[in-house]
Amino acid sequence: MTPSPGTAASPTGDSVAGLLAEIADIGRDPVRGGYSRPVLSTAELDLREWFIAHAGKRGLDVETDRNGVIWAWHAPSGSREDAVVTGSHLDSVPGGGAYDGPLGVASALVAFDLLAARDLDGDTTRARAIAVFPEEEGSRFGVACLGSRLMTGAITPERALALKDPDGTTYADALRATGGDPRHVGADRAALGRIGAFVELHVEQGRGLVDLDRPVAVGSSILGHGRWRVTVTGVGNHAGTTLMADRRDPMVAAAQLVVAVQRLARGVPDARATVGRLVPTPGGTNVIASRVDLWLDVRHPDDATTLGLVEQVRAAAELAAAEQGCTATMAEESFSSTVDFDPALRDELRAVLPGAPVLATGAGHDAGVLKDHVPAAMLFVRNPSGVSHAPDEHAEDADAEAGAVALAAALEHLLTRGKRGL
Amino acid sequence: MTPSPGTAASPTGDSVAGLLAEIADIGRDPVRGGYSRPVLSTAELDLREWFIAHAGKRGLDVETDRNGVIWAWHAPSGSREDAVVTGSHLDSVPGGGAYDGPLGVASALVAFDLLAARDLDGDTTRARAIAVFPEEEGSRFGVACLGSRLMTGAITPERALALKDPDGTTYADALRATGGDPRHVGADRAALGRIGAFVELHVEQGRGLVDLDRPVAVGSSILGHGRWRVTVTGVGNHAGTTLMADRRDPMVAAAQLVVAVQRLARGVPDARATVGRLVPTPGGTNVIASRVDLWLDVRHPDDATTLGLVEQVRAAAELAAAEQGCTATMAEESFSSTVDFDPALRDELRAVLPGAPVLATGAGHDAGVLKDHVPAAMLFVRNPSGVSHAPDEHAEDADAEAGAVALAAALEHLLTRGKRGL
Repeated sequence: MTPSPGTAASPTGDSVAGLLAEIADIGRDPVRGGYSRPVLSTAELDLREWFIAHAGKRGLDVETDRNGVIWAWHAPSGSREDAVVTGSHLDSVPGGGAYDGPLGVASALVAFDLLAARDLDGDTTRARAIAVFPEEEGSRFGVACLGSRLMTGAITPERALALKDPDGTTYADALRATGGDPRHVGADRAALGRIGAFVELHVEQGRGLVDLDRPVAVGSSILGHGRWRVTVTGVGNHAGTTLMADRRDPMVAAAQLVVAVQRLARGVPDARATVGRLVPTPGGTNVIASRVDLWLDVRHPDDATTLGLVEQVRAAAELAAAEQGCTATMAEESFSSTVDFDPALRDELRAVLPGAPVLATGAGHDAGVLKDHVPAAMLFVRNPSGVSHAPDEHAEDADAEAGAVALAAALEHLLTRGKRGL
Repeated sequence: MTPSPGTAASPTGDSVAGLLAEIADIGRDPVRGGYSRPVLSTAELDLREWFIAHAGKRGLDVETDRNGVIWAWHAPSGSREDAVVTGSHLDSVPGGGAYDGPLGVASALVAFDLLAARDLDGDTTRARAIAVFPEEEGSRFGVACLGSRLMTGAITPERALALKDPDGTTYADALRATGGDPRHVGADRAALGRIGAFVELHVEQGRGLVDLDRPVAVGSSILGHGRWRVTVTGVGNHAGTTLMADRRDPMVAAAQLVVAVQRLARGVPDARATVGRLVPTPGGTNVIASRVDLWLDVRHPDDATTLGLVEQVRAAAELAAAEQGCTATMAEESFSSTVDFDPALRDELRAVLPGAPVLATGAGHDAGVLKDHVPAAMLFVRNPSGVSHAPDEHAEDADAEAGAVALAAALEHLLTRGKRGL
């Protein structure tokens, strides 16, 4: 494959770096640094409009389905069955990087340009589409991959619509406020059934490709992971007038728990456990908190080990709370088993991308949710910092273009080999 | 004294409970419970308008000085020198109670009604005023009693104007956005010089009056206290892809510090040390924090002991940060020595209010800042819950009226005894 993206070979002249530059000012976070683009925020809605404009410019047929997934179609025969689909997401964690999500979307647009330049319609009538999923990060409503979970029925509409953001707004209210209709949310077998294969390109969230000195990898698996919310309830009071002996301070219990989480996770090889979000209520300097909510993220290749570690954390939470005269409750917000991507599809992509290593990831993705329903695969693009979910997340322009070229090769292979061949 | 407030004896017909009922819907916090009325928020500005309307209804002459302190004057001779001043504040901590601040303002209005009904103008031409101070809690810009500190010169205008709220808005910007003029902020000897005596009525923030079975007390002292901001800086990264051994997680260091603060404070008799506010950045569930800011509130009757405890906390912060591969810095945001109110004024008030016990408080107040410049005193009203800075903060209607009656008696005494008699 020789065409250089962003040159005459691409009908639009767009490069991945150029596309990302267009959205570089959307959703910047002046306090945290990086980007804050929570689902259904002005920033995320602006990014959706940007994507829809680019899809329109390419003559793709755009639809937004009842779960808020945007689809941009090229269907030469009119049929959207057994389609080859790529895509990612546009929402971010608070203060996240520029690449997690948007790199996959921008690469999909450029890959479609490369395919258009090759005029495959003589070789295949198989449809292709770019899908953009909402709330992949779960950074606003707490459940990651919410769009793909709704589509596949992995979460019920009742539970999803009742999820609340930090301001107390439900997902149902947020949908209504932005023109959505909560009544239509839920499992969508028709939408899911059209996907013949799904390939998600993503910036790598570690240093695997840096260490191997390669620009692009094929994904092998996603570490099992889950999120639990711990609520420690004590007695709020004045910081000056309440003696130390009279306190029931949930902040101290929560702090003891955070320390215990590190100790317990260090005791389990390959486990990762994190408290990155902690909210004291009311949160005043001169006020003993009445309640502290904290969120626990736990990951391990073996699901039983993950759940065992979570039970140890639960016991530690109850112990710490009791010691401070408080109470603690713990509720699962989401749990995903370790995902092994389809080995046959993985090996096909390796054959199309000679030299691309195979890497596992500790990060969750919509491809991991779809994988139980359709053949799914991932491509990773080198991240020189190894950092993700932070402003230092990065991909060199040349690596981003190499990623789009690899994605185009993968899509072309899937589009032109025998239908239903997976 | 026999007139019953809220009856024909009060020219306005207002009672303390009735006045507080008028503002019961302003600034309610649906998430935390109670009230969030930060300085210069819509809620606090609405409360200022409410106060100004009530002052106008009483024929008081209202001015807002260059530090944002509202004054409502009754000056029968035209002179505002050597005035007897009462007042409090209208801002609240996040999720605070209904009484901390507004009780003193509402009681001042009713006390002025009682004085008006007595027609003291034949006995004295001494002016009286109600003063409402901004940002007493320091809940938005971090420095408590900001209005009185500016007026007295206890904080420089440069430092005050550069203070930032949690959204990064400076005090200067917030003033400009609400019609204030930052250029005029700063020490105001003329305004301060008019105060002949200051009496602040406040809801008690403990159970002293409950235990003594009395409705109203005279204040003796305010515990020395200060606030320090601790910033722990680590390396933000993805919660799933970063091994436990590779982390430099500031949340764990901050948690170790919170645990240490309790342990250190318990080792110092009479000390109170609190972390009620803690903010991880970026604060995502699936993100290892890059930075954690937390605020330390420390109080002790002996200032040297307070500062010694703070140094122990600083050492603990540095140790915990180093242990996690992070760094910690600690900066004083405010410090106030233990305040003993004027003993002569206190004894005069006790004589006017027979049976009122004398109580110390652990909470800071504008009266404590003014005390170094003018004779100042406080009255406390019984709080059956003993809780403050939380929705459970309370005063019974009858106690609130008793407080206004006591305040009127104190003001009448000060107005009618020999001028400059203090």
